[in-house]
Amino acid sequence: MSSTLVDRLRAGLPDGAVVTDPAITASYANDMASFCPAEPPAVVVLPRTAEEVQHVMRTATELRVPVVPQGARSGLSGAANTSADCIALSLVKMDRILEVNPVDRIAVVEPGVINADLSKAVLAEGLFYPPDPSSWEMCTIGGNIGTASGGLCCVKYGVTAEYVLGLEVVLADGRLMSTGRRTAKGVAGYDLTRLFVGSEGSLGIVVKAVLALRPAPPPQLVLAAEFDSVRAAGAAVCEIMSGGHVPSMLELMDRTTVRAVNSFAQMGLPESTEALLIAAFDTADPAADLAAVGALCEAGGASQVVPAEDQAESELLLQARRLSLTALEQVKGTTMIDDVCVPRSRLGDLMEGVEAIAGKHALTIGVVAHAGDGNTHPTVCFDAADPEESRRARESFDEIMALGLELGGTITGEHGVGVLKKEWLARELGPVGLEMQRAVKQAFDPLNLLNPGKLF
Amino acid sequence: MSSTLVDRLRAGLPDGAVVTDPAITASYANDMASFCPAEPPAVVVLPRTAEEVQHVMRTATELRVPVVPQGARSGLSGAANTSADCIALSLVKMDRILEVNPVDRIAVVEPGVINADLSKAVLAEGLFYPPDPSSWEMCTIGGNIGTASGGLCCVKYGVTAEYVLGLEVVLADGRLMSTGRRTAKGVAGYDLTRLFVGSEGSLGIVVKAVLALRPAPPPQLVLAAEFDSVRAAGAAVCEIMSGGHVPSMLELMDRTTVRAVNSFAQMGLPESTEALLIAAFDTADPAADLAAVGALCEAGGASQVVPAEDQAESELLLQARRLSLTALEQVKGTTMIDDVCVPRSRLGDLMEGVEAIAGKHALTIGVVAHAGDGNTHPTVCFDAADPEESRRARESFDEIMALGLELGGTITGEHGVGVLKKEWLARELGPVGLEMQRAVKQAFDPLNLLNPGKLF
Repeated sequence: MSSTLVDRLRAGLPDGAVVTDPAITASYANDMASFCPAEPPAVVVLPRTAEEVQHVMRTATELRVPVVPQGARSGLSGAANTSADCIALSLVKMDRILEVNPVDRIAVVEPGVINADLSKAVLAEGLFYPPDPSSWEMCTIGGNIGTASGGLCCVKYGVTAEYVLGLEVVLADGRLMSTGRRTAKGVAGYDLTRLFVGSEGSLGIVVKAVLALRPAPPPQLVLAAEFDSVRAAGAAVCEIMSGGHVPSMLELMDRTTVRAVNSFAQMGLPESTEALLIAAFDTADPAADLAAVGALCEAGGASQVVPAEDQAESELLLQARRLSLTALEQVKGTTMIDDVCVPRSRLGDLMEGVEAIAGKHALTIGVVAHAGDGNTHPTVCFDAADPEESRRARESFDEIMALGLELGGTITGEHGVGVLKKEWLARELGPVGLEMQRAVKQAFDPLNLLNPGKLF
Repeated sequence: MSSTLVDRLRAGLPDGAVVTDPAITASYANDMASFCPAEPPAVVVLPRTAEEVQHVMRTATELRVPVVPQGARSGLSGAANTSADCIALSLVKMDRILEVNPVDRIAVVEPGVINADLSKAVLAEGLFYPPDPSSWEMCTIGGNIGTASGGLCCVKYGVTAEYVLGLEVVLADGRLMSTGRRTAKGVAGYDLTRLFVGSEGSLGIVVKAVLALRPAPPPQLVLAAEFDSVRAAGAAVCEIMSGGHVPSMLELMDRTTVRAVNSFAQMGLPESTEALLIAAFDTADPAADLAAVGALCEAGGASQVVPAEDQAESELLLQARRLSLTALEQVKGTTMIDDVCVPRSRLGDLMEGVEAIAGKHALTIGVVAHAGDGNTHPTVCFDAADPEESRRARESFDEIMALGLELGGTITGEHGVGVLKKEWLARELGPVGLEMQRAVKQAFDPLNLLNPGKLF
């Protein structure tokens, strides 16, 4: 089959767009998730146009070959992992920003555009594309759409889903479909655009996107507050959010994370603290907002409240936060990054519960959280060469998801399901929900060729 | 069939919840759209619980009877209109606000809750439910979800879709399905929640909704600017929006609308103006924002710029705007309200095009617009007793939609498709898009019992 497949693909793709060299195809086998099976794909294709993507999908349909769409493969759930019989369809060469329109406040892009490149291009026009996953300097807009990415500024500006107005999609059989609009509003038919956001490439291949932009906000000013317990920090988050404040960022790092960041990058963060809360405002008078939030933190038992004096100090605090996951990776060599989101009123319960789970399994689990959204990343640090510790890591990871569901939360706030959380998706949705999800999949991909084995 | 149907329905519903009196059922035949066929339904049911809705749907499935879900029937596209063989399923008795949670910033409601009742209940907790269709004092949240309602404050705060986090839905066969979440973020599986928003009751019956809330903003201050042409007003809108301003409202009334409002309610609006732009800000310093926007309007040729001095004056201007459609109804007795949304850069083109269409057909067409969103409501005023004028009204209505599509817009920004715009939906979506929309419908409602004949 493989030589037929490659010949057919080459018939409609330019030289160099079909890669079969095992040394190269192997590097397309997986994203950044741990514990997810992956084999090198049969072939890697790197189309540059929608027509070339259509050729790939028509070929895949004719020959009944599975297709795994890929962006930068920076995902954390194995959604981009390949199997030996599949085509890895990498969209990274479709990386043109086709339009930035300040009047209509939209950008039109191909899926391979890097998030940071788009952010810079629109900032040059005084505009702002908010979704900012930690991987924003490498991840692609297509990947962001596939996983419905979040980020640090979601607490004020929302997630990727809020910014996708319209799509062009190549369907499983190779037909091209337009969804949505380039207008600010529109309700013509079912919202298939939003259905594609977060579908992990399992319903079709996004080849163009119309994205909503906002005016660039003023620079944000940042404050750090130290707490003696994660519960106290969680309570402060609730006070801030129920007090009518609208921070542009409200992040939390627990003691394990703070120490990891210090040890990785000598940031001089306060090691004696149990929880470090980082709040930011990009309002007209951020100093006033920070003063109000600082007072709330003090009333909530913060031992230290340190507003940044200027942009440079603000940037340093944000950098510490952004380094968290990389720093935690250094602790024991490997991490499993969970992504449990709970109603923010249950944040303290979740953080305490994770502490208890870490203790029970004698594991190091650092928690970094988009606290304002109740979206936590409990990060299990372990030695992958130690099978016994690896087993405990996996067990604790599952216990954290169970706790999240028990607290009224979800197993994934922004990283997606992929293969990592398939069993858990079924638990969260229940049998009726799962059946209807499968029915939607069947409607778009009756031959089950698009990223099979993911999500369900 | 009918007596079997009624007996079966009565077997699972309390006394009074099944209505067959023709004098009453006739009043459930239609919403507020013109030119949409409607017959009194075979029976009206008024369930009070999800279980009762399940009984209705199980009965409908067993007996293969179509079901038309209804809220306040204030819709403008005929989506709630009934046929003689159907069950009208009115959700208005399921009107409990189950929870308002300031920490999690959510409300949990039944579908029959009136928009204004929810707005008031959450405001008492310092919170804000933004979607505010003109009918907000009578329309229901279930209807808002079914039609993906917009409103005046969408330009800053977005539409209903942005505020629906999770749903409980009774499927066509009577099973209960949960979608979404009560957390701020979540990406567990396909976004079926958003798929239901705007589906006009054709995929399932919403029996509970988790809605996102925001902190109540400061009171807004309003400015009115008069222009000598709709094109100049449209250009000013573009300047305001590309200038980085974030108005909480940016509305436009053309001369026909201004005069209609004056004649209906003696508001003392400036009759000599061609276009009246109304801008509002609810920022920390709205007077400063209004001054900046006022200067932009003057630079753009505004003949008069009048900032409101205080809340009372602001409220008066908003009231004038809110009365527009009612006032236009008085002009000739009947209106057809279009809902074309274009990229805001094409607003001037659309407004001028509508003037030309009105001239060509010798008709009065008033345009009121959510100008900041490019969402216009060209409102054809005609005498329904005059068949020739009615024909021209219908023709001009269609020409306006064609113009909207030609300008890169959509046939419906916020009112939905219903029966009024079925043919136009097919034109906007194209054959592939339409086929996939039908495939989704088929997945949820294989017997085509839920609001058949709407949308497609």
